[in-house]
Amino acid sequence: MSEVSNLEEKTLKKEKLYSGKVIDLYLEEVELPNGKTSKREIVKHPGAVAVIALTQDEKIVMVQQYRKALERTIVEIPAGKLEKNEDPKEAALRELEEETGYTSPSLQKVISFYTSPGFADELIHLYIADGIEPLAEKKQLDEDEFVDVMLVSLEEAQDLVESHEIYDAKTAYAVQYLQLLHKSGGGK
Amino acid sequence: MSEVSNLEEKTLKKEKLYSGKVIDLYLEEVELPNGKTSKREIVKHPGAVAVIALTQDEKIVMVQQYRKALERTIVEIPAGKLEKNEDPKEAALRELEEETGYTSPSLQKVISFYTSPGFADELIHLYIADGIEPLAEKKQLDEDEFVDVMLVSLEEAQDLVESHEIYDAKTAYAVQYLQLLHKSGGGK
Repeated sequence: MSEVSNLEEKTLKKEKLYSGKVIDLYLEEVELPNGKTSKREIVKHPGAVAVIALTQDEKIVMVQQYRKALERTIVEIPAGKLEKNEDPKEAALRELEEETGYTSPSLQKVISFYTSPGFADELIHLYIADGIEPLAEKKQLDEDEFVDVMLVSLEEAQDLVESHEIYDAKTAYAVQYLQLLHKSGGGK
Repeated sequence: MSEVSNLEEKTLKKEKLYSGKVIDLYLEEVELPNGKTSKREIVKHPGAVAVIALTQDEKIVMVQQYRKALERTIVEIPAGKLEKNEDPKEAALRELEEETGYTSPSLQKVISFYTSPGFADELIHLYIADGIEPLAEKKQLDEDEFVDVMLVSLEEAQDLVESHEIYDAKTAYAVQYLQLLHKSGGGK
């Protein structure tokens, strides 16, 4: 590994262009490593959580949700934005309960990753919960959130990836994670 | 699978808030499935490509790049934005050549996925190229792009995921893809 260059971009000017409900937009003027200047458009996001939730008979809990940015419905693992100062693990359990009506006594961390480092700071924290149980009482979704819950096998999930009904990074990662677990004899 | 509800959100009003170099920002007023209204902040992006590029001795080509949105340098597979009307496979080869100085006679499609369906329409197309060769003559990077090329083994890549030097969705997916290929006896 060769890692000596200083690739850093220094901020010369930072302008907030938009302050929204979910995201803020900034325009930054930066000094490049070669001394020249450029502009960077940067979306600030509060971060998100997602859960690979498995029933006792090894079905994966998915939610169908209309995504306005895509103008279509896709199938995703349960996920949602972090609330202010919220612990990611607690947020993951909250989203699982609110979106699916299932709960779990134990969530395990899988990985965190930035979704779009070229223009956004959204960091998503992925958890896994197995042996999930239905909640006695349903929780309330956000008032502008509408989802349908589905239970699918790993094979069905792989088909949904093929057919582009599963079509987002975190859910594609989750399906591949379960394939790898299965191949490794994890039996999930 | 239960899939009967109409989850669609109809656009009532659409306002372009910002038109940028990489992204545009829209604010849409939508009618929810229950007849109420809400607002959606939507980032429009041209789409992107990325390449899992493997040398003949099975090293993975990675690039270190400073990401202003994250205020840090991370290690990623070669990637870049689609140019207008550009074929994704040609774009993937172009980015591989420009960013790393390697080329490949054959790129195979792995998967496409949206990176942040909650607020952006960025679709990334992932390819794999093995047996890559150094270009006789180096190509030009974009004038505001500075990267360091690294060759890493799969084991080293897994360590970089653990240490958060690899920290983005496409690269995490790529490393997991190679792990799965390895476990399946693909030998890569």
